[in-house]
Amino acid sequence: MNTIFSDRISDVPKSFIREILKVAVDEEVISFAGGLPNRDLFPVQELKRAAENVFDKEGTSAMQYSNSEGSPKLRKFISDRYKLKFDLEIPVENILITSGSQQGLDLLGKAFLNEGDDIIIEEPGYLGAIQAFSIYRAKFNPVKVDKEGIDLDGLVRVFNVSQPKLMYTVPNFQNPSGISYSERNRKGVSEMVKDKDIYLIEDDPYGDLRYEGEPKSSFKQLLPSKTIMLGSFSKTVVPGFRIGWIVAPNEIFEKLLIAKQASDLHTNQFAQSVLVEYLAMGDFDSHVSKIKEVYGRQREAMIKGIEKYFPKNVEFTQPEGGMFLWVSMPENVSSMKLFNIAIEKKVAFVPGHPFYIGKSETNTLRLNFSNVDEETIELGIKRLGQALTVLLKK
Amino acid sequence: MNTIFSDRISDVPKSFIREILKVAVDEEVISFAGGLPNRDLFPVQELKRAAENVFDKEGTSAMQYSNSEGSPKLRKFISDRYKLKFDLEIPVENILITSGSQQGLDLLGKAFLNEGDDIIIEEPGYLGAIQAFSIYRAKFNPVKVDKEGIDLDGLVRVFNVSQPKLMYTVPNFQNPSGISYSERNRKGVSEMVKDKDIYLIEDDPYGDLRYEGEPKSSFKQLLPSKTIMLGSFSKTVVPGFRIGWIVAPNEIFEKLLIAKQASDLHTNQFAQSVLVEYLAMGDFDSHVSKIKEVYGRQREAMIKGIEKYFPKNVEFTQPEGGMFLWVSMPENVSSMKLFNIAIEKKVAFVPGHPFYIGKSETNTLRLNFSNVDEETIELGIKRLGQALTVLLKK
Repeated sequence: MNTIFSDRISDVPKSFIREILKVAVDEEVISFAGGLPNRDLFPVQELKRAAENVFDKEGTSAMQYSNSEGSPKLRKFISDRYKLKFDLEIPVENILITSGSQQGLDLLGKAFLNEGDDIIIEEPGYLGAIQAFSIYRAKFNPVKVDKEGIDLDGLVRVFNVSQPKLMYTVPNFQNPSGISYSERNRKGVSEMVKDKDIYLIEDDPYGDLRYEGEPKSSFKQLLPSKTIMLGSFSKTVVPGFRIGWIVAPNEIFEKLLIAKQASDLHTNQFAQSVLVEYLAMGDFDSHVSKIKEVYGRQREAMIKGIEKYFPKNVEFTQPEGGMFLWVSMPENVSSMKLFNIAIEKKVAFVPGHPFYIGKSETNTLRLNFSNVDEETIELGIKRLGQALTVLLKK
Repeated sequence: MNTIFSDRISDVPKSFIREILKVAVDEEVISFAGGLPNRDLFPVQELKRAAENVFDKEGTSAMQYSNSEGSPKLRKFISDRYKLKFDLEIPVENILITSGSQQGLDLLGKAFLNEGDDIIIEEPGYLGAIQAFSIYRAKFNPVKVDKEGIDLDGLVRVFNVSQPKLMYTVPNFQNPSGISYSERNRKGVSEMVKDKDIYLIEDDPYGDLRYEGEPKSSFKQLLPSKTIMLGSFSKTVVPGFRIGWIVAPNEIFEKLLIAKQASDLHTNQFAQSVLVEYLAMGDFDSHVSKIKEVYGRQREAMIKGIEKYFPKNVEFTQPEGGMFLWVSMPENVSSMKLFNIAIEKKVAFVPGHPFYIGKSETNTLRLNFSNVDEETIELGIKRLGQALTVLLKK
């Protein structure tokens, strides 16, 4: 009865990262593998107070079936914040609350992708997006990202041979590479895309977490009618609430809403109410500042550790924000081999190949610095440096 | 740029029920249209206490990213309850927590349905399932349900001409009709299906809400290797938490888990923890008893009202549980015409045609009795009786 499953699900492989994380469960292993925010920074007491207020003030309203668009107050907060941060006018009617950004990706796949439709993704690219769009059997056109942003020549080559419907980007502190698109790169992309029948997805889960440098333009400013924005409270408040959002033009919003209804009717109403109550307390910005301070220090610790302990022919990115840093070993050195040595030395990371389409081996790896304290980062990077030294001397 | 959307989303019409509900928003209108549980019965104080315990005892653990399968304790509660209620041994490993039952339907569509795949549904059938499976462009094979259950001859006719992968059923107090499959009907279905390459979905959101008669066998008891069960806490605790589950055999579970990861990573962890804490208080059964008592009285009030106020040539079901009752007018009488008269008389319901595939008109209607108190039910049914009298005399 193997054939009873859909083609789409038969084609999606088991999550490699889940397998990696199982290895990293050993308590002695220092893990740079996950993509978790630091739980010590979760505003537990504030959320507790917010929850109490919801029980007392809203009561049953926060627990009944609700509308698929999401909480009007939460959507208003998001709209106001776009105005404040980017001077963008985003009508509340164009904001759809989703069950995490991951659902945003699923809904976009549902609403746009027929089997074989072309889509542009970054290389290396965000695994959750690859998984979500794989389900709809998209044809991936990976375009390299480097310190400047996405490769404009690579984009030209894709547009020469195909008509992609969607272009998926994480322009700020990308997962997995940590790089950000330069202002010039963003303008180059916008120029290239503006007359094409394509929508650009700007996924920005880490945008608030900038530790140095100046904020860049949103694609929504550069390409207002063609940009779809994804956002999330997972990195700034808590991920366990599973609350994200999509900003989409009217004609798309309507399709996404149909997809949302068919997918889960609506996002958890109680969690939305608690979040609204928390945000109304006015501590959100100072809370984000606290996260930035801590993660910023952890990023510093990781960079210093790498400079101290890694062989000099190993390259790495210096992200201005976010949660990840990307390491490139000399060509033809296997990050899976490094992984096996590293696990013996009690340190874990994610080898680079799952972030590419159709690769089973690379010389790259992703390191997370948000979920490990400075001291442990130094120790873990030291161990990883030893593993690298062993491997590169072979 | 109309063609930029996927075929699947272009084919799904706007929700008719949403349009209906908009009309019913007028405060003077007595609405039997929605499918809402009665919010006055939500265990707000108990959930408040449960939430406090989660904040104090679990803290950040309840707010971090979590596993896609769902809370082990919640899955254990569900497993234990199947043992208690049906003497069924359901391993925790076969229970997947979903973001409401609606997501269960979406995941089943993702995992099973290629475009054009045959699926059996009930006629009239649950609208949420029709929407979810429409997204995957299933070919629907509707089979009539009546007081006995699903029409076995109709099933034979479907099996003679097609090889459906899935059969979707709501055997207890079906939405929209309120009917339940008899024990004999369940056995007939099982006998017919047992040697076929098909899975039977038993969606049972109302199973706990029985007001009279004896509980029937689950298809899981009759067809253990071929039954997939869907369950929900929306009708017994609160819908706003969006917590449901799927029980599936191993080989299916693995595919559903991939689909779940791609869809939203995992269900709201905090709400799962609060629910676990609430269920551990041990009040669940007495809470369900309270709901049964109230809904049972409301059902009685509706039946008595219908007997008193409806013309005698109008038929209706007498559900043993659940939230809905189904009304059939004489043939060729239009429920949309009735709807328009009824709205003038300040009473609303859902006309029957959206519960069928490809119908724009029927002589049937769905009435909800869970969300309106007894006194209001009498008044609303009186108004509806007047509307019926007007229409049938024309």
